[in-house]
Amino acid sequence: MTFPELDIDHAAARTASPDAFKEAFRLHPAGIALITALTPEGPVGLTASSVASVGVDPPALAFSVTRATGSAGGILRAATHVVHLLDAQHVELAQIFARSGTERFTAEQGWSALPTGEPHLADARVALRCRILQATPVGSSVLVLAQVLDIHQGRQGDPVAYVDREFRPLHRRS
Amino acid sequence: MTFPELDIDHAAARTASPDAFKEAFRLHPAGIALITALTPEGPVGLTASSVASVGVDPPALAFSVTRATGSAGGILRAATHVVHLLDAQHVELAQIFARSGTERFTAEQGWSALPTGEPHLADARVALRCRILQATPVGSSVLVLAQVLDIHQGRQGDPVAYVDREFRPLHRRS
Repeated sequence: MTFPELDIDHAAARTASPDAFKEAFRLHPAGIALITALTPEGPVGLTASSVASVGVDPPALAFSVTRATGSAGGILRAATHVVHLLDAQHVELAQIFARSGTERFTAEQGWSALPTGEPHLADARVALRCRILQATPVGSSVLVLAQVLDIHQGRQGDPVAYVDREFRPLHRRS
Repeated sequence: MTFPELDIDHAAARTASPDAFKEAFRLHPAGIALITALTPEGPVGLTASSVASVGVDPPALAFSVTRATGSAGGILRAATHVVHLLDAQHVELAQIFARSGTERFTAEQGWSALPTGEPHLADARVALRCRILQATPVGSSVLVLAQVLDIHQGRQGDPVAYVDREFRPLHRRS
């Protein structure tokens, strides 16, 4: 894992309004993922709308997290983590993991563990076990580049997009 | 711009199937962006479904490109580029810029230039002028981390998600 120095333009950072930036991405649809890891303190997880494919040789993906939360810190420190790509069936679970102080990793939610120990939502459409190749701090966020080590298929539902602070199910083609 | 060494696990890279990886992301919805830059050879542009917000302090975003194309090389070498977040009104333009050999940057498509010279689709919902903070090669792809320098508002339409190789309009809340 490397922590490169970034040459941030602080004058420009004062001119591009954070509010206009947030508004721009509020209306940019995104898929939803649930990222989990096993830490010495137990399982951790968070909901992310920033997961994107980077390339296939090797299979790699990227996502970003806010450093402030304990779950993000646990994922960043863990040797491996699991990126579950969620369908409409898991919207409620995505909301639970997007809030703090909620009950997580209960048997009723469908959690088990991979043979390698990471928390696994076996019912999720697909779970990608990953290791971090690079973590780049940018302000209070971290951009993570991760290599996919193996892929676990679950149960396919309708795709779901997050846009304008809503989850929008997208029906499958018939 | 830094080019860090990545510690890729090549044994694992042989076990996570590229086909299963592609299939996983095929059903993960994404917003659509059109990324442009001005190069010594003229304007270049490409359609990207990997643009995601990284953080607001400073405003930063990430996306990935395939190194093989000339447009990607032009964007990576340019001092600045423009990330247009597209609505349903620009699906046809997104398709034009996703194929090679198509007619691009015509007046009929609505292109003009920012005062700083970059190609600008003034009608796009929002255009984010950016500079690259970090470009990380991963196989034949590059993960780009970029700082947003300024933000140009256009005309808001219905959001559109790309999923299962289709563009799916998402109607605005009334």
